[in-house]
Amino acid sequence: MSKTNAGRFFEDYAVGQVIDHAVPRTVSGGERALYHALYPARHALYSSDKFAQDSGLPKSPMDDLIAFHTVFGKTVPDVSLNAVANLGYAEGRFLKPVYEGDTLRSRSEVIGTKQNSNGKTGVVYVRTQGLNQNDEVVMEYVRWVMVRKRDVDAAVPDAVVPDLKKVLGVEDLVIPEGLDFSNYDFTLAGETHRWDDYQVGEKIDHVDGVTIEEAEHMMATRLWQNTAKVHFDATFREDGKRLIYGGHVISMARALSFNGLANAQMIVGINGGAHANPCFAGDTVKCWTEVLDKTETNAPGVGALRLRLVATKGGTPFALKGEDGKYDPNVLLDLDYWVLIPR
Amino acid sequence: MSKTNAGRFFEDYAVGQVIDHAVPRTVSGGERALYHALYPARHALYSSDKFAQDSGLPKSPMDDLIAFHTVFGKTVPDVSLNAVANLGYAEGRFLKPVYEGDTLRSRSEVIGTKQNSNGKTGVVYVRTQGLNQNDEVVMEYVRWVMVRKRDVDAAVPDAVVPDLKKVLGVEDLVIPEGLDFSNYDFTLAGETHRWDDYQVGEKIDHVDGVTIEEAEHMMATRLWQNTAKVHFDATFREDGKRLIYGGHVISMARALSFNGLANAQMIVGINGGAHANPCFAGDTVKCWTEVLDKTETNAPGVGALRLRLVATKGGTPFALKGEDGKYDPNVLLDLDYWVLIPR
Amino acid sequence: MSKTNAGRFFEDYAVGQVIDHAVPRTVSGGERALYHALYPARHALYSSDKFAQDSGLPKSPMDDLIAFHTVFGKTVPDVSLNAVANLGYAEGRFLKPVYEGDTLRSRSEVIGTKQNSNGKTGVVYVRTQGLNQNDEVVMEYVRWVMVRKRDVDAAVPDAVVPDLKKVLGVEDLVIPEGLDFSNYDFTLAGETHRWDDYQVGEKIDHVDGVTIEEAEHMMATRLWQNTAKVHFDATFREDGKRLIYGGHVISMARALSFNGLANAQMIVGINGGAHANPCFAGDTVKCWTEVLDKTETNAPGVGALRLRLVATKGGTPFALKGEDGKYDPNVLLDLDYWVLIPR
Repeated sequence: MSKTNAGRFFEDYAVGQVIDHAVPRTVSGGERALYHALYPARHALYSSDKFAQDSGLPKSPMDDLIAFHTVFGKTVPDVSLNAVANLGYAEGRFLKPVYEGDTLRSRSEVIGTKQNSNGKTGVVYVRTQGLNQNDEVVMEYVRWVMVRKRDVDAAVPDAVVPDLKKVLGVEDLVIPEGLDFSNYDFTLAGETHRWDDYQVGEKIDHVDGVTIEEAEHMMATRLWQNTAKVHFDATFREDGKRLIYGGHVISMARALSFNGLANAQMIVGINGGAHANPCFAGDTVKCWTEVLDKTETNAPGVGALRLRLVATKGGTPFALKGEDGKYDPNVLLDLDYWVLIPR
Repeated sequence: MSKTNAGRFFEDYAVGQVIDHAVPRTVSGGERALYHALYPARHALYSSDKFAQDSGLPKSPMDDLIAFHTVFGKTVPDVSLNAVANLGYAEGRFLKPVYEGDTLRSRSEVIGTKQNSNGKTGVVYVRTQGLNQNDEVVMEYVRWVMVRKRDVDAAVPDAVVPDLKKVLGVEDLVIPEGLDFSNYDFTLAGETHRWDDYQVGEKIDHVDGVTIEEAEHMMATRLWQNTAKVHFDATFREDGKRLIYGGHVISMARALSFNGLANAQMIVGINGGAHANPCFAGDTVKCWTEVLDKTETNAPGVGALRLRLVATKGGTPFALKGEDGKYDPNVLLDLDYWVLIPR
Repeated sequence: MSKTNAGRFFEDYAVGQVIDHAVPRTVSGGERALYHALYPARHALYSSDKFAQDSGLPKSPMDDLIAFHTVFGKTVPDVSLNAVANLGYAEGRFLKPVYEGDTLRSRSEVIGTKQNSNGKTGVVYVRTQGLNQNDEVVMEYVRWVMVRKRDVDAAVPDAVVPDLKKVLGVEDLVIPEGLDFSNYDFTLAGETHRWDDYQVGEKIDHVDGVTIEEAEHMMATRLWQNTAKVHFDATFREDGKRLIYGGHVISMARALSFNGLANAQMIVGINGGAHANPCFAGDTVKCWTEVLDKTETNAPGVGALRLRLVATKGGTPFALKGEDGKYDPNVLLDLDYWVLIPR
């Protein structure tokens, strides 16, 4: 028997299965520095211990997306090695900030399976949790992927499709203990715009762009210990291109959105997300945001915005879908998330 | 009104203005490791805690240019987003070593403005200070840039051109508290040449070269949270090239100068500097040094050298300017600085 | 006299010489994060403090090859600046784990010299030790390189060729104090295969591949403060290619071998190694392993495997040498090492 991991196929998943993913990871200032070298990340809460302390936290946490990528990366060998497509995200919640020295691991429960009508593939739904060294859940999200069957004749159970929230409510959002924006320093944060200044329906063109390099997306993807061949091996796809990890685009766009959303400090929820088109080295990633909703919170001085973040590789600003309902070919990412911002 | 930062234009600056720049930054071993991965930095004082302790410091500080870049990067959104050219530096002083865990922010005062005769641009002079979490100034420098006017018809005040020192005197240099080179280990430092071995007028060809990659200069520039579009977005300039942050060339040349100046441990002053020609990915950076001056200091075993560091992209060693007084087209950088070296 | 380092030539070496290499280095979480960004390193012992503590260590050490590269890099200016070829390794032993905050330096003793029959070059054998801040030896290895003579007419002493072990015995291997795999968590480690599951003669195709980028190998090589021009300066070789540091291939292959050897946690011995063919950017590195030997150890639950790790740039899996005894042109590395694995 081969000793290498062939990955799970569709018929290997069953609702109720719990998978403990391998390779726990202790994060340090090294991960933080690399994150800030790979993305133009500038949100002050994740850059300065003092700013974080002035906001009621013990010190500056790891960027929220470091936690997401670290947790996500561990699931790849078990969930998406034979995936044909990463179909969606839902019910993503950040439950506890991650600090230097924390050790993260991941656990997933299969919450749905549904064979496709072609009989060759199926959709697998997993709810993944990231846990720290004290077995506290630091974040969780649902993801569904299309996976090949090993044997097209394998019998499969009846379809189970989980009932997922289209949007997290404010009651679902967990605000870090102690967070307080009452004495928020807008000068040090970089912009004057506060919660009140954003209107539902408002769109922001974030203006800046970054042309993507192979070395950068591979370093990022490896740092999260994501092992999918397609990101690293230029001989794997017939066209000789390395497909860029969708999370690289998420982080790039989130960082670029600083320009116009400098005070949108902490991601607390991910309502949904689609990797609309593949991204390759040489693409210049830009992004725009639409304000979808806004709500107050119980934390002092803290409001929440629900934002649509759209990453593109050029094209017309604010273009999203054509009349046929399909994504514009220049759209890379359509992400729906909740973020905390001073009121 | 657009929420993104359009940057300041010439008529937005007035002598006496103080600008507190955004996004304070806590530095860690991650920044140090990245600096040493991006540049061939080998000065022992910035590489080894033990070597630094044997030199009278509590431990190994961050490389002096990490402090410079971090402080500089924060000024970009306020000072040079609409800059046409980075014209010069003066009176740069390193006042206090920066250690892991320190949080840096930047503050600039406008000390001069002078509209150009074309009426479309002007020169702005700022004195920038980097402060740590205890509000101590860790470094400062004067920089002047040419900035576009938003409105060519805008009225501007009379020109004020600050009186800047051409060269810092030894009395201007601040030697880190406790620094002592009496028991300096030349073997561990890498070369035997001490202060006495360098003569005014001496020139050193540092021999080594590095061919620059896009991924590297972008990672460096992002690490300093420098947001200038021209470094990242290949669609921004008409020629499709990303202009390399001048500081990347400074650090590359300083690191390459180790070979011949291994004992020139700490930069304490920057007298002046010119980015003579643009640098692009694919250029092979080499450098040479001319000893301009030397002086004793009050610290035990510590001398100072005033050096001209010239970075080139090939061409004849020691070529600097043509008969017309213009820089040789292969010269990238002409930097005049003071450095501490054992006597 | 030139102040730059011209490197030693063959006639500059004499048996018994001890060379203390320059630039000690304090390592931190930054080096670890960069290592994991540059290589797909996933061995749990080097990724998680908790996993390491559950294995009897105080916390997660630096990856064993971080120690090797750091120690090796310091020797380059003294040993291999004028090397024509890196001929071999022997008697490599990892004696003490390296932790964040340790300061490493290197010392070599010349243990053999032998002029080649052409009179223009010779082979130099050095035994190099890496020492920490407490003067403890953390690792050691023998390396031999072919070095040019400065003066072909220089007289040289009689040849001395050291008697080196072809293979380290189990009694030569040093197991880290306290290491205990009795309660090893195979799920968190990523695979179920233990010592018993590997058979002498067994071959494993590790399947995964990484296409190499210039920025990555240069960052790695600089991080180890390896200064050899040929890795950095595209104008140095006539073909305009930068030769990739052989250690980059070692680390890439070792990391890729996780897939099939996830439990082969710690390298404790290097029996030998050959850089069979040069590696350049654009090559896609893959690897395979042959189990050469296996032995029990005195540590609880800990077995040892002797492995041949072969890195290739494509070609047929398991191809090694042709009928003429020469390496297949696709073979980059042939490494013979001992590794610790749970029984």
